[in-house]
Amino acid sequence: MSDITSDLALFNELVEVLLNEEKSNPVAERIDSDKLYDSIDLSLNDSAMVDGDFKSLLRDVLVTTPKTATNLFFNQLFGGRQSKAILGDLLAVMLNNSMYTYKVAGPQVGIEQEIIRQSCEMVGYGPESNGTFPTGGSMSNYMALVMARDAKDPDCKSAGMSKQLVIYTSKESHYSNSKNASFAGIGRDNIRYIEADSKGRMIPEKLEAQIKEDLNDGLIPTYVNATAGTTVLGAFDPVDKIADITEKYNIWLHVDGAYCGSVIFSSKYKHLIAGVERSNSFSYNAHKMLGTPLTCSILLVKDKKQLHYSFNNEADYLYQTDGDDFNLGKTSFQCGRRNDALKFWTLWKSIGTIGLKQIIDHQFALADVALEYIRSNPDYKLYSFDDSISICFNFKNIDPMALCTALYEHQITVVGFGSFLGDTFVRFVTINANNTKQDILNFFKVLETFVEKAPNLNKIKEATPELI
Amino acid sequence: MSDITSDLALFNELVEVLLNEEKSNPVAERIDSDKLYDSIDLSLNDSAMVDGDFKSLLRDVLVTTPKTATNLFFNQLFGGRQSKAILGDLLAVMLNNSMYTYKVAGPQVGIEQEIIRQSCEMVGYGPESNGTFPTGGSMSNYMALVMARDAKDPDCKSAGMSKQLVIYTSKESHYSNSKNASFAGIGRDNIRYIEADSKGRMIPEKLEAQIKEDLNDGLIPTYVNATAGTTVLGAFDPVDKIADITEKYNIWLHVDGAYCGSVIFSSKYKHLIAGVERSNSFSYNAHKMLGTPLTCSILLVKDKKQLHYSFNNEADYLYQTDGDDFNLGKTSFQCGRRNDALKFWTLWKSIGTIGLKQIIDHQFALADVALEYIRSNPDYKLYSFDDSISICFNFKNIDPMALCTALYEHQITVVGFGSFLGDTFVRFVTINANNTKQDILNFFKVLETFVEKAPNLNKIKEATPELI
Repeated sequence: MSDITSDLALFNELVEVLLNEEKSNPVAERIDSDKLYDSIDLSLNDSAMVDGDFKSLLRDVLVTTPKTATNLFFNQLFGGRQSKAILGDLLAVMLNNSMYTYKVAGPQVGIEQEIIRQSCEMVGYGPESNGTFPTGGSMSNYMALVMARDAKDPDCKSAGMSKQLVIYTSKESHYSNSKNASFAGIGRDNIRYIEADSKGRMIPEKLEAQIKEDLNDGLIPTYVNATAGTTVLGAFDPVDKIADITEKYNIWLHVDGAYCGSVIFSSKYKHLIAGVERSNSFSYNAHKMLGTPLTCSILLVKDKKQLHYSFNNEADYLYQTDGDDFNLGKTSFQCGRRNDALKFWTLWKSIGTIGLKQIIDHQFALADVALEYIRSNPDYKLYSFDDSISICFNFKNIDPMALCTALYEHQITVVGFGSFLGDTFVRFVTINANNTKQDILNFFKVLETFVEKAPNLNKIKEATPELI
Repeated sequence: MSDITSDLALFNELVEVLLNEEKSNPVAERIDSDKLYDSIDLSLNDSAMVDGDFKSLLRDVLVTTPKTATNLFFNQLFGGRQSKAILGDLLAVMLNNSMYTYKVAGPQVGIEQEIIRQSCEMVGYGPESNGTFPTGGSMSNYMALVMARDAKDPDCKSAGMSKQLVIYTSKESHYSNSKNASFAGIGRDNIRYIEADSKGRMIPEKLEAQIKEDLNDGLIPTYVNATAGTTVLGAFDPVDKIADITEKYNIWLHVDGAYCGSVIFSSKYKHLIAGVERSNSFSYNAHKMLGTPLTCSILLVKDKKQLHYSFNNEADYLYQTDGDDFNLGKTSFQCGRRNDALKFWTLWKSIGTIGLKQIIDHQFALADVALEYIRSNPDYKLYSFDDSISICFNFKNIDPMALCTALYEHQITVVGFGSFLGDTFVRFVTINANNTKQDILNFFKVLETFVEKAPNLNKIKEATPELI
């Protein structure tokens, strides 16, 4: 038996352990971070570990690693497991192509390009559009920012930053905007955080007022980041109204749909990003709403020349056959690049666009179940709004930070908290499309049972397990 | 049978197809890029594809995707397949953690940190060192550059670029240096390409002369990129001598070991990067010499405060439990981040540091086999040097570009060409540690047989398959 055959057998054996564990203990056995290195032998040593010990150790690692695919994981903007996407990603590991050239990626290039082409159509971009697969949502925003910077000041690419560029995003947008401004040489102080309305959406009038002020000050408005699904509330900035402004002042408009941009696949919810075809770039993460393994981020650009201008570099040692359209390294940040496209393609191909739509619609339907439950139960207070898969609430005025931490530390369910306009609350996300209506109701039941048994919640962090 | 169970069964079935195919056809059936979309149904459609058709299509995709793990693939700076690393990466797909917090990554955080800690020790960094897993070698270089920029001009992070920073790298270094200068707001014109000696190594005296000139011109020398394994020749810049200069002028020294930095694991070859402990940052790609699946890049930083300064961002919605040492999102470029560490850890843990050393030493031994063959055969001319796993040669004065393209188009073997000091040649890389001495000799035999049957090589591109 060759090494690879025996290790594939071991993989299958361990997957069985994992899948059983996910059913019997949907929340992983937790190791306190302080005790991690004493609890499990993570050490790397000179000598090899014998096979039996290695297998047993891997089993321990699997059992104690947080389980993101189960029906009690609601902590992040991803969760669950689309099995057809798993299939594609497992194959990508075996194939191990790098996506820079057709010579070493072959049909995988076409797989990536077909996803991009179809996505551009969904968005409403024209034939000059194209895109790439960045390594995540932050990187998607960063690449958009670099293109915006280079579009406004084409000399910057060669000569470096010299002009006073300013950029705009809402207060509710993702923190990558701040980091990216620093990375691009624009500086974090040159971001204008535009106020959001009572539902967490950027206020276009405030945006325009700020742009005018900056123009008066001799600054150069360069980039507006609109968000399709804000990190906490899942709110959608009004793209159409923002596009009126960016077109008027000739500013690059990027729509960050990392969280909820996948609504492009749903005729029912696509209206939430109405106007997206007017943007210069748009990104979404298939590893969020569409449930592929991490990471699967897609960045679309209305004018592919911008992508090429900012990211191209000649490299004779690398680009030796086939044309630019097939050598994808010419439009990526990276050189070597993992195949993140195959997993999305296997999912999309096997369930069709109709299947993708069903995933999206189901997530909103699950959100409606949660909203209805909360609204009909006076022990809950709701902080979020319709048309969002982030359900924000508090229960019986219990401190949400203490509650989430206690739920986590006692391995009850994994969920996080967020804040908006001075309120802090539990943020419950119905993004795992494997969940049923019953799973959503079960979450509330689990939470209520936990609170009932542990009435003194502010002290729960110090409580012994016996207490609850 | 659940979806995941049946898709795992399909995965196993397809892997068997793939492994058999790799044996019977080590070079994949090639589809001309012009004919790609007509030859294979990559289209994405509204409706789902029926299971049987889907399976048959996936089989076609597997068969026609370039095979990077076989004994006839020598085209890139990666190749082969370490089965224990495959195991880890397949498990990472199933686990699907994001590496930003301990709350959702748990022991995987410790796995990543243990690799970083041990690597820092190998390099000779002190207790204040740390690191991260960037998404590739280009990103490793970019993160190092951003840290260098922020170290030289701490205000840049907030205020944006305002000073005239200049950076240095050798003419033989990776092209990401050029792109990165643009991304960071420094500008491509502000890179100084330092001349290399006759063996492709940066000439320290030229570096110092250039730094002096820039200082005289009122510019600010900020960053030197030294390369451990240049892209074409696999040459090692003299780190110790370069460190004398960077220390003297207080310039950040980054050692880009994407290709050959893994020599830190070999007592026999570690001397090639003597002085690396004096650098400020060092990166290597385990997906290159160590044979893990893409991508597995490690960036080490002597002073972890620099990593934190440039990449940290508070995010209350995200960092809710455990300390900074366990919430790795505070030192990464990204927010959500794939688990690239587990595959390297399963490899390292199972074969030990001794096993990693054997991999490295074996690659150099294979290179010696190739060198000996070439040196003892007058039909070959050698362009590369000892202590490199890039073997550069020409055969019978045949145009290397035409030869490589013909070998690829006729599915004989996959290998690329490179240039140095005006010469262009075949670049043959002995990085696949699964290969034996016999596989290396076989490559030459395959090449010679091909040339013999197709004497008019400049016309090979137009030749019909019958001709050869």
